[in-house]
Amino acid sequence: MTEVTVELKIEDGLAVITLARPNNMNAVNLNACESFCKVARTVSQNETVRAVLIRAEGKAFCVGGDVMEMSSITADRGSHVHKMATAIHEGMLYLKKVRGLIISEVQGVVAGAGIGLAIFADIVLLSEKASFSLAYTAIGLSPDGGATWLLPRLVGMRRAQTLLYENRKLSAQEAVDWGLATRVIPHDELEDHALTTAKKMAGGPGDAFSRTRGMLDCSLQNDFEQHLSLEADNIAALAASQDGREGLNAFLEKRRANFKGSF
Amino acid sequence: MTEVTVELKIEDGLAVITLARPNNMNAVNLNACESFCKVARTVSQNETVRAVLIRAEGKAFCVGGDVMEMSSITADRGSHVHKMATAIHEGMLYLKKVRGLIISEVQGVVAGAGIGLAIFADIVLLSEKASFSLAYTAIGLSPDGGATWLLPRLVGMRRAQTLLYENRKLSAQEAVDWGLATRVIPHDELEDHALTTAKKMAGGPGDAFSRTRGMLDCSLQNDFEQHLSLEADNIAALAASQDGREGLNAFLEKRRANFKGSF
Amino acid sequence: MTEVTVELKIEDGLAVITLARPNNMNAVNLNACESFCKVARTVSQNETVRAVLIRAEGKAFCVGGDVMEMSSITADRGSHVHKMATAIHEGMLYLKKVRGLIISEVQGVVAGAGIGLAIFADIVLLSEKASFSLAYTAIGLSPDGGATWLLPRLVGMRRAQTLLYENRKLSAQEAVDWGLATRVIPHDELEDHALTTAKKMAGGPGDAFSRTRGMLDCSLQNDFEQHLSLEADNIAALAASQDGREGLNAFLEKRRANFKGSF
Repeated sequence: MTEVTVELKIEDGLAVITLARPNNMNAVNLNACESFCKVARTVSQNETVRAVLIRAEGKAFCVGGDVMEMSSITADRGSHVHKMATAIHEGMLYLKKVRGLIISEVQGVVAGAGIGLAIFADIVLLSEKASFSLAYTAIGLSPDGGATWLLPRLVGMRRAQTLLYENRKLSAQEAVDWGLATRVIPHDELEDHALTTAKKMAGGPGDAFSRTRGMLDCSLQNDFEQHLSLEADNIAALAASQDGREGLNAFLEKRRANFKGSF
Repeated sequence: MTEVTVELKIEDGLAVITLARPNNMNAVNLNACESFCKVARTVSQNETVRAVLIRAEGKAFCVGGDVMEMSSITADRGSHVHKMATAIHEGMLYLKKVRGLIISEVQGVVAGAGIGLAIFADIVLLSEKASFSLAYTAIGLSPDGGATWLLPRLVGMRRAQTLLYENRKLSAQEAVDWGLATRVIPHDELEDHALTTAKKMAGGPGDAFSRTRGMLDCSLQNDFEQHLSLEADNIAALAASQDGREGLNAFLEKRRANFKGSF
Repeated sequence: MTEVTVELKIEDGLAVITLARPNNMNAVNLNACESFCKVARTVSQNETVRAVLIRAEGKAFCVGGDVMEMSSITADRGSHVHKMATAIHEGMLYLKKVRGLIISEVQGVVAGAGIGLAIFADIVLLSEKASFSLAYTAIGLSPDGGATWLLPRLVGMRRAQTLLYENRKLSAQEAVDWGLATRVIPHDELEDHALTTAKKMAGGPGDAFSRTRGMLDCSLQNDFEQHLSLEADNIAALAASQDGREGLNAFLEKRRANFKGSF
């Protein structure tokens, strides 16, 4: 029987993805990478999903690629690693398609490709027991999981270099101070806080969230004029949408908006 | 008679643009958006202008689009909002053409599209009474006014997400600490400080300022080699210009430079 | 006899480049710019080089272009300045090709083009006596040396504007707090610390370092999908390389890796 390495539960518009190799500190072997990708595709194809929560079982969030498995592949290790990285990457791209926000709940140690899974989320919630260690160049590798795309956007180029070349370890509070994560929550309250946040976001304006994420993701590549044009198109589409009308009405009626997240 | 919603005064090379709907907290209706655009075009076409100061009357700087007007448009609200955003955007692009710096004087609350008008400036001066609230997703919309282009450049991606998805409100001091604004000035001194700064910049090397702004605006989209080539062309052109010669002479003669801002 | 303005020593995989016009505060005249470019080309063509240390003689690191020389060129100053900037820029691009990290040791004042030479490095080490002053617009010029490419990536757009338009001077500690530099080292220990760091990096996984730098340098221009694909290709190539195998083996054997830096 194949080991279950990534679990999925979809309920009331919220998809909860759980890394489930706690005895291996949620290291991702090829099976886990492919399971993550499959789960992410399922989530992206489910039109009821309006928020995604990524979490992990056990003490570590994810320590990255499974080095024991990697070392056991001697014949064509490059190809094996390429498959692992590509599966994780495709999974991340699937989740980016979800019409709603991605929240990560980081309860412990994060390293290697685990970094990407934690920080590509739109809201990154940390326990004070969370810590970050890139660790790629320490073993002669360069990053995957989007770290070289995400870090300069989140912490600036100098701090990205310090994390990648000198493998500086970051505590949870430092990660927030540097802009890597959103906030630190007391360890015992993290699970509740993350679930409450994810449910709240699942009740938000999913299409507005997704269009905003899309614009943040292409912001740095666009010139000002191109980007302003994109903003005008998106706000006009939303103003005419069900959620845009409800949002404005609720504001004027001083009541809580009842968003559907729909187009 | 049409309401005057945006005022313009040009004097001694300084264009002062004033948002003038204080009884509506300077919310911009379609008329105000179009007036801003018209005023900005006038400024961009006036070759004597060497600095622009954007300010506002009353207690609020600008609370964004006029939601009362928006809610009154029921037939083709998308098209109406598109016109509003496009007028503001064209105005911002006109001001970017000015051969000199753009300074904003933010004396109070800023929300929605007001954010763009405040923070697209080259120097952003705040009263301690200024505060920032994006508020778009709270009413089911995505940003306009350049917020999704500007925020990642100014405060990094994580803080941009916090401002846009959770509508975190920022105080004046937080806005400076995060990199959204340049500095906080005591409320009673802000008007004088802003005018003095704008006049000083109007006496600066306008072409050097504009070429520098142009390079900052395309910095993130360029690769290093392309960008270095652009820098070499610009510094060479300036070194041969009237202002470049005057700057060097004044430096060697240990006197204050008398810049003309000209090509 | 031509003045020696830039010195080069290559030993044990470490190239040390020294700015050597201490009596001119290491201002770069055309000869120094061209010497830097020539030295950088030599370094880039030497396959034994696995790290570069950029340092300077005397009290100043580099105060930028030699204004005395610039003022003496009256006939075709634009062309002269273009040659200077282009030589510096070509030198920087040569050093970016080195299969290993670039470290700068900044013991004193930095201004103008000296900024680029100090901060384009992957690790920027400062004495508490270091200070930064852009100073271009003060003499009617726009930046060269990559400042308008580097500053928005390192300190964000608002602080870049403050440094460039208002010529705000930064102390060493501020430079680190803002993300311009990596860390401050007590002045008397800087030389040892920089040499030790550079030697350590020369013993690191040069190819992994270079591929990582290449990805950081194109990070902001790429979309997420393109960049993930690049990351997968690079980590796969490194996993199959000599250094990647050694890194993994050393990790599993809990010993220090013996990297060769080779392909």
